[in-house]
Amino acid sequence: MLPRGRPRALGAAALLLLLLLLGFLLFDWRLRGAAALDGDPLAGPRDSNPSDCGPQPLPPPKCELLHVAIVCAGHNSSRDVITLVKSMLFYRKNPLHLHLVTDAVARNILETLFHTWMVPAVRVSFYDADELKPQVSWIPNKHYSGLYGLMKLVLPGTLPAELARVIVLDTDITFASDIAELWALFAHFSDTQAIGLVENQSDWYLGNLWKNHRPWPALGRGFNTGVILLRLDRLRQAGWEQMWRLTARRELLTLPATSLADQDIFNAVIKEHPGLVRPLPCVWNVQLSDHTLAERCYSEASDLKVIHWNSPKKLRVKNKHVKLFRNFYLTFLEYDGNLLRRGLFGCPSQPPSGAEQLQQALAQLDEEDPCFEFRQQQLTVHRVHVTFLPHEPPPSQPHDVTLVAQLSMDRLQMLEALCRHWPGPMSLALYLTDAEAQQFLRFVEASPVLAARQDVAYHVVYREGPLYPVNQLRNVALAQALTPYVFLSDIDFLPAYSLYDYLRASIEQLGLGSRRKAALVVPAFETLHYRFSFPPSKVELLALLDAGALYTFRYHEWPRGHAPTDYARWREAQAPYGVQWVANYEPYVVVPRDCPRYDPRFVGFGWNKVAHIVELDAQELADLWPAHPHHLAAAHLD
Amino acid sequence: MLPRGRPRALGAAALLLLLLLLGFLLFDWRLRGAAALDGDPLAGPRDSNPSDCGPQPLPPPKCELLHVAIVCAGHNSSRDVITLVKSMLFYRKNPLHLHLVTDAVARNILETLFHTWMVPAVRVSFYDADELKPQVSWIPNKHYSGLYGLMKLVLPGTLPAELARVIVLDTDITFASDIAELWALFAHFSDTQAIGLVENQSDWYLGNLWKNHRPWPALGRGFNTGVILLRLDRLRQAGWEQMWRLTARRELLTLPATSLADQDIFNAVIKEHPGLVRPLPCVWNVQLSDHTLAERCYSEASDLKVIHWNSPKKLRVKNKHVKLFRNFYLTFLEYDGNLLRRGLFGCPSQPPSGAEQLQQALAQLDEEDPCFEFRQQQLTVHRVHVTFLPHEPPPSQPHDVTLVAQLSMDRLQMLEALCRHWPGPMSLALYLTDAEAQQFLRFVEASPVLAARQDVAYHVVYREGPLYPVNQLRNVALAQALTPYVFLSDIDFLPAYSLYDYLRASIEQLGLGSRRKAALVVPAFETLHYRFSFPPSKVELLALLDAGALYTFRYHEWPRGHAPTDYARWREAQAPYGVQWVANYEPYVVVPRDCPRYDPRFVGFGWNKVAHIVELDAQELADLWPAHPHHLAAAHLD
Repeated sequence: MLPRGRPRALGAAALLLLLLLLGFLLFDWRLRGAAALDGDPLAGPRDSNPSDCGPQPLPPPKCELLHVAIVCAGHNSSRDVITLVKSMLFYRKNPLHLHLVTDAVARNILETLFHTWMVPAVRVSFYDADELKPQVSWIPNKHYSGLYGLMKLVLPGTLPAELARVIVLDTDITFASDIAELWALFAHFSDTQAIGLVENQSDWYLGNLWKNHRPWPALGRGFNTGVILLRLDRLRQAGWEQMWRLTARRELLTLPATSLADQDIFNAVIKEHPGLVRPLPCVWNVQLSDHTLAERCYSEASDLKVIHWNSPKKLRVKNKHVKLFRNFYLTFLEYDGNLLRRGLFGCPSQPPSGAEQLQQALAQLDEEDPCFEFRQQQLTVHRVHVTFLPHEPPPSQPHDVTLVAQLSMDRLQMLEALCRHWPGPMSLALYLTDAEAQQFLRFVEASPVLAARQDVAYHVVYREGPLYPVNQLRNVALAQALTPYVFLSDIDFLPAYSLYDYLRASIEQLGLGSRRKAALVVPAFETLHYRFSFPPSKVELLALLDAGALYTFRYHEWPRGHAPTDYARWREAQAPYGVQWVANYEPYVVVPRDCPRYDPRFVGFGWNKVAHIVELDAQELADLWPAHPHHLAAAHLD
Repeated sequence: MLPRGRPRALGAAALLLLLLLLGFLLFDWRLRGAAALDGDPLAGPRDSNPSDCGPQPLPPPKCELLHVAIVCAGHNSSRDVITLVKSMLFYRKNPLHLHLVTDAVARNILETLFHTWMVPAVRVSFYDADELKPQVSWIPNKHYSGLYGLMKLVLPGTLPAELARVIVLDTDITFASDIAELWALFAHFSDTQAIGLVENQSDWYLGNLWKNHRPWPALGRGFNTGVILLRLDRLRQAGWEQMWRLTARRELLTLPATSLADQDIFNAVIKEHPGLVRPLPCVWNVQLSDHTLAERCYSEASDLKVIHWNSPKKLRVKNKHVKLFRNFYLTFLEYDGNLLRRGLFGCPSQPPSGAEQLQQALAQLDEEDPCFEFRQQQLTVHRVHVTFLPHEPPPSQPHDVTLVAQLSMDRLQMLEALCRHWPGPMSLALYLTDAEAQQFLRFVEASPVLAARQDVAYHVVYREGPLYPVNQLRNVALAQALTPYVFLSDIDFLPAYSLYDYLRASIEQLGLGSRRKAALVVPAFETLHYRFSFPPSKVELLALLDAGALYTFRYHEWPRGHAPTDYARWREAQAPYGVQWVANYEPYVVVPRDCPRYDPRFVGFGWNKVAHIVELDAQELADLWPAHPHHLAAAHLD
């Protein structure tokens, strides 16, 4: 179902075929084996029952703030972290402070996400991974996680000095229980223990996996570092920074590199200082590696606590119980993150920035007001996941133009045609549910045309409310455009194949760089037929116009919207010409990236673009120059 | 995104406007207040901590079978029960046996649902509510739940004699925790206690809500019966059947009727026999009635256990924490029920009927086989929720015809037009996710045209897999048709306004009742324009055909599909005429309801209907009679 208020012409039923003229890492799984733990006192579900009282350790005091650290870099890991965080938030009953060590990409994504998510009782701090690189870049490393994996080693020196305890998580973790139960295991540390870890569920560190396999030294089967309880205070006191560096340097005299990044070094240090480690029950890190024998752990447990997708195959790992584990993961992958915007019972907490004013404004709305739905939708802050998929911004060029548009699920099939017609950068906002975002991901992965494009940035704005927030979507896409100019288009339009080149040339020729107060108008056409061949030139376009197979855009419904473009003059024109703003004019334009934003109060259908053109004109940006006539764009749907 | 393999013509982009020519072819909330429980020893979160060991009561033995009884009648309560069951299954770790007391409507829905859901370690037994009516129909009752609410009183005599314990739930309950924790509270019963209940969170039974308010007698604030722990064995031993009847009869000498159904009678009995009741912690039945003071319960709790939507306003109840509670409910309302098809850890259980063979067949598929996706989709058993919305079957008539079709979300907007064109009964299968099913529900509620129709049965088939299971959907819709004849149509077709009447008259005139081996062919047309006026008669249709504004259906792509209809003869014909089956013929037909089913192995696009016509012909059902010429149908989209 379309959000109500979406223009009918965008509805799935009414096909509008339109013409435009001129106008490191990522999967954080770990390639590790796994081993049976049967009979091993270090692990097994028995150990999850530390007292005689019951199966649960004592929870931490109600409302105690729990600290969680995660290293995250790149687009794909950012998506993984969000699924992890959703699982954590679903079960949590305590306030959380997330400490995120991120590269610039992950920071942009996650900062925007948490800012717009507005989850009560969640604080987020960012730490710049690039600044930490020199501390670990000297370590030769064969693990896919590159330098980022190693950064877990420097957390005691990176996190605030007053922070005494933290849970450290890999990005490929899914919670199936309340993280407070894990935090409660800190209480079982002896006075000297500083690192809580689950045994590695593979024979990797036994060194017998294959001939000449020389793993790093470890205590028995070693430990897996996907889930770590760190007593930062004790590590700092024990001189951790020197400790791990000494061990690593010494081992690297005989070993060429780390194979499993930080995990090799943690294990080597623990072998030397076994008093540091507190073994944790195996259910707190059920490792689904390729040949895992974790079954001996979880088959005895009545309860899964944490699933660790540490196979390179991730969800496609072969395991007779994988469906069960996968269902936990899919639950949170597709879970509506908006539902996690809920407070905690009886834990007073500072509401997220802006949330309180919003609540008050919402509370003041009158439900009997005929505009109630519109006012409510205007006040909605949508959760936003920018650059949802891997994205390589094009090299900076002075006259480059990004196509900016927005869409929902029913327009996905426009993307391939759009990619064929517009070879330049695009910034597209998609209005989706969490489950639809996963369908979108699969759609792109299955399309060679889309998968080949690294210069298209997709920004997911999560659905909430009955009305389509068209201008909020436009603003998200506009804010993420990286070129000096933007072409403000709509998803139902297909540009001429030559439009991208023509626009860049025109911007240069018209000297728009110096006379910034101009917008280029891209004339728009439409056809009422659903089978249609895209006219390759202006001559063909004019022939189709004359034959009645094409119309100027909205010719029947709203000719005033494009009348000032002066199509009659455009037919004959050999060069761009100026036009003046007139009320109701709503052309498609190319403007500098720093143009005024759209008014986000327009939701649903109507006037949303007109108002923007008024604003452009009022700011004297609207010296309008219709497109050079010998360039032509037309729509084609197959 | 459309499931791959769906015909492109059905895609959201390509609008296919089609014409058919006639010829031949077809809240269980409770209105209760709520009160503060502060300082009341009966309730409060303190009581959820029955031992000194921790906040959780001891869980029942691993893998113990837990029994749950629910009374459910009608379409809306059936939807509620499914959401309740989803929340229960999400958190449960034990095998469950559901005892469902149902009317015929709920039984048809829930039996089909559980049969196709195939959740491991869940057994379901049905008990006929109609048979129980005489036991409670003598009680005058003002509660909306009618007789059904009262049936909780007769469970001790209705459930199997060997069943000793059961948890009884209202349909408007949402679990936020593992039901085993609730079951564990049986262990806290004294030797004589037989009924575990949470105090009523309102002042209703104090009798001071308004002037002349005369509630039934109760102990203090009384108890709420939305969640009951019943020791059936002890109740039977104590002579429960006589006990409650005696009490009810005596009270009804002075009170005109029960106001809150079974709850009034339970409270009156408990007032007389206070030793029977075991008070339960308030978090096990947080009652969100209109003026609930339940906050004093849940604000002290660290953990919500069970939410009870016992306001007539349900989710729209005013409460400053309602958003938080609503999010729990919405979580399960929209939760993908397929994800609950997961086994239990370490509890061996009989797999659901058919599940084992399916698993084996799936395991034998070769992932490298180019047809792997098709074979996998063919083996998928889709969860089915028949008559998702309230439905009144039309009175039985000997020549009545049900329109049968299937659709997914992108075709919802066809429904209103279809309802305008076809005034008779319809049976429609919808291929949706759980979340989309809720969008569909809101769509129908918001449409006066759809909301007014009680003779349209909607059957939700839940999405799973990448290919559109077109024939499985058709079979679901066909199986639920209740008239002697069915018109096997497609959702993109709009019938002539007169087609329904014409078909019924023709079935009678042609004596199809006696010569059953005939199918009526309804000639089909299409237009390539997206703006189009539906031709009101055959004359206008022929004019449009001659003008090239209309074509016979699939004239360009696949003329063979409809060639045997012999449109040239049809143009001139004044009466139905016989046609013979020819390979590739795929007309739209009217046939008896007990016609052969579609072959469910056809998934995605292609040959699915052709194969069915072959089957009709092979079974000699296919004496084909194209429609009488002066009746006409055409499509119109606005």
